[in-house]
Amino acid sequence: MATLFYEPSTRTRLSFESAMKRLGGEVLTTENAREFSSAAKGETLEDTIRTVEGYSDIIVMRHFESGAAKRAAATAGIPIINAGDGPGQHPTQALLDVYTIEREIGKLDGIRVGLVGDLANGRTVRSLAYLLAEYQDVKIYFVSPDVVKMKDDIKKYLTRRGVEWEESGDLMEVASKCDVVYQTRIQRERFGERIDLYEEARGKYIVDENVLKVMQSHAVVMHPLPRLDEITVDVDADPRAAYFRQAKNGLYIRMALLKLLLVGW
Amino acid sequence: MATLFYEPSTRTRLSFESAMKRLGGEVLTTENAREFSSAAKGETLEDTIRTVEGYSDIIVMRHFESGAAKRAAATAGIPIINAGDGPGQHPTQALLDVYTIEREIGKLDGIRVGLVGDLANGRTVRSLAYLLAEYQDVKIYFVSPDVVKMKDDIKKYLTRRGVEWEESGDLMEVASKCDVVYQTRIQRERFGERIDLYEEARGKYIVDENVLKVMQSHAVVMHPLPRLDEITVDVDADPRAAYFRQAKNGLYIRMALLKLLLVGW
Amino acid sequence: MATLFYEPSTRTRLSFESAMKRLGGEVLTTENAREFSSAAKGETLEDTIRTVEGYSDIIVMRHFESGAAKRAAATAGIPIINAGDGPGQHPTQALLDVYTIEREIGKLDGIRVGLVGDLANGRTVRSLAYLLAEYQDVKIYFVSPDVVKMKDDIKKYLTRRGVEWEESGDLMEVASKCDVVYQTRIQRERFGERIDLYEEARGKYIVDENVLKVMQSHAVVMHPLPRLDEITVDVDADPRAAYFRQAKNGLYIRMALLKLLLVGW
Repeated sequence: MATLFYEPSTRTRLSFESAMKRLGGEVLTTENAREFSSAAKGETLEDTIRTVEGYSDIIVMRHFESGAAKRAAATAGIPIINAGDGPGQHPTQALLDVYTIEREIGKLDGIRVGLVGDLANGRTVRSLAYLLAEYQDVKIYFVSPDVVKMKDDIKKYLTRRGVEWEESGDLMEVASKCDVVYQTRIQRERFGERIDLYEEARGKYIVDENVLKVMQSHAVVMHPLPRLDEITVDVDADPRAAYFRQAKNGLYIRMALLKLLLVGW
Repeated sequence: MATLFYEPSTRTRLSFESAMKRLGGEVLTTENAREFSSAAKGETLEDTIRTVEGYSDIIVMRHFESGAAKRAAATAGIPIINAGDGPGQHPTQALLDVYTIEREIGKLDGIRVGLVGDLANGRTVRSLAYLLAEYQDVKIYFVSPDVVKMKDDIKKYLTRRGVEWEESGDLMEVASKCDVVYQTRIQRERFGERIDLYEEARGKYIVDENVLKVMQSHAVVMHPLPRLDEITVDVDADPRAAYFRQAKNGLYIRMALLKLLLVGW
Repeated sequence: MATLFYEPSTRTRLSFESAMKRLGGEVLTTENAREFSSAAKGETLEDTIRTVEGYSDIIVMRHFESGAAKRAAATAGIPIINAGDGPGQHPTQALLDVYTIEREIGKLDGIRVGLVGDLANGRTVRSLAYLLAEYQDVKIYFVSPDVVKMKDDIKKYLTRRGVEWEESGDLMEVASKCDVVYQTRIQRERFGERIDLYEEARGKYIVDENVLKVMQSHAVVMHPLPRLDEITVDVDADPRAAYFRQAKNGLYIRMALLKLLLVGW
């Protein structure tokens, strides 16, 4: 397995590499392909892929451009796994999120999920909403500052697929109803000069002990990580804090995916 | 195997690491030894080598200074493989080029090779010309913009070894006669402020469908990669486009070299 | 084993990775965790550790902050090895130093050790002095420029533990009496603008052929490396130059430590 990371992502890279090594395979690593490779000399992505596929059996790629993984897959004769392509998709994250819900709650049909935080820029919540439409009787609550509300494309898609959703400004009420409170980081880099808007958005919906108090006993808090202070550290000790288990599930999902692609079912 | 890369080269590094792993060995990687190591604190190359040889059985080194590999080999008690030393040599590239010609054309004696592009700065074509002198009845054509013509040292060497060569400004005529058209990238970094000269040199000799039309059916196009636009992408689909097979041959040559150095014949 | 290096250190990283691979284990590498990871997005060390421990069985960490390893160990459910935490400790270096003395001199009780060079900033000599207090009848000589003398905390500790020590300005006399001359690099980065003080300090105590002449035949020269010119290269050929053997001992010490932590005695 070759890991071609044009953007650094230690978490995702290490979990893929750990997955491959636990399966008994070997790994060729590129921690920073953008700066340290022929891309800097002007080589096209297609040429890089054609070269690297000569040295490996599967390529895991993280790129800064939306659609890069698709272009790579169209070129390559070996499987390409998209480990995030800029503002595009991060499909293995969505898979591990769905797997985590199933494992923590015991079901996917009929669940209620609160998506909280930066719903405009977080590709994680967008992909998760998209995947949840595959299940029955799901209800999604969107809880976000006005400047980073969930975009219309996803809302329209959910409506078309018959998924119930609503927007709410009341995190406590949503938390009391949901099986899953899925918190996300407000991404400072999206606010440019408007630090005031960032600071306002950032402090608005925090998952803390008060939120835990209203949550049901079987419900869980999830987060794609890294977090800053949108979940306070005193939440970590609660058994309903599922985000580190969620991160570990990334290992199992990626092991399964690698095995599926290289060996089959 | 320890890979000590003082200059980044993803292609070369990954092919060496893939080679070692396919042979069953293990790899210690340094993607950017210049910035991330004791070299930054002023340690000599000799001291670094003495330390790293304690942790490994063979060292693959890429360095920015001509002669660095020789200095390392003089110090080390284990084999050192030169994976490129600045403007000096890149011997494993020359080996894989000769191997590719043998494999694609079926022979080395009697072949006609057109070396095209940046013949002044490309260490690849210099090393290849040097190695081709070991074979019988070889004829070499040099096709390059005036500012990057093949230097006299190689021409004199070829003459002394009885290798026929000539310079030509007519790529079509050369392509129609040759077994191998070996194209290279015009290296922008060598032109400094003279972007006008670079742009002129760069567009002069392009391998495209028109060149393919005059080439013989058994002939091949080679390129050390990365390429920019000196070979157009519509050439890629032609069976005579050998450059990605050439890159893959790097893996086999390096496997053979590692086995030879560590185990013997 | 995951190597989390927030500060680059090729020597230490490669020796740990070589150790793990020689034991049959696998390695996940981060050459520059500070720049290339979630730390850059503001993730706490504790969160990083909780994530990475999901992917590995042991973590080797180098950090730029004193106490970082302790914080990581308090968080993790798997062993954390401190591979240097800023101006704090570098315990595996101290272990390999003591092991090297034992192996080179044949004993630790009763030895005489001259610590030379930057005794104020070198965490290596501080840790070594601390560890030597565990043995009987040790005598330590401190030989350093005035601006980088050994600090009082270590002197007081040695006195309290009954270890004899004295300061000396005469390297030749100390070298003639000692079993071990432990030289260190004057660290330029500690002198800021005062290059004049650095240059003065740097040239004051050099281990060269004259020092070798007065040393006893069974004595050795050690150095944590990298060195600049505080040991001249003509010393390298003398059998008493133990510093490259010392570096290699790092491999054995780290193999032993990994085995101890993962498998037990």
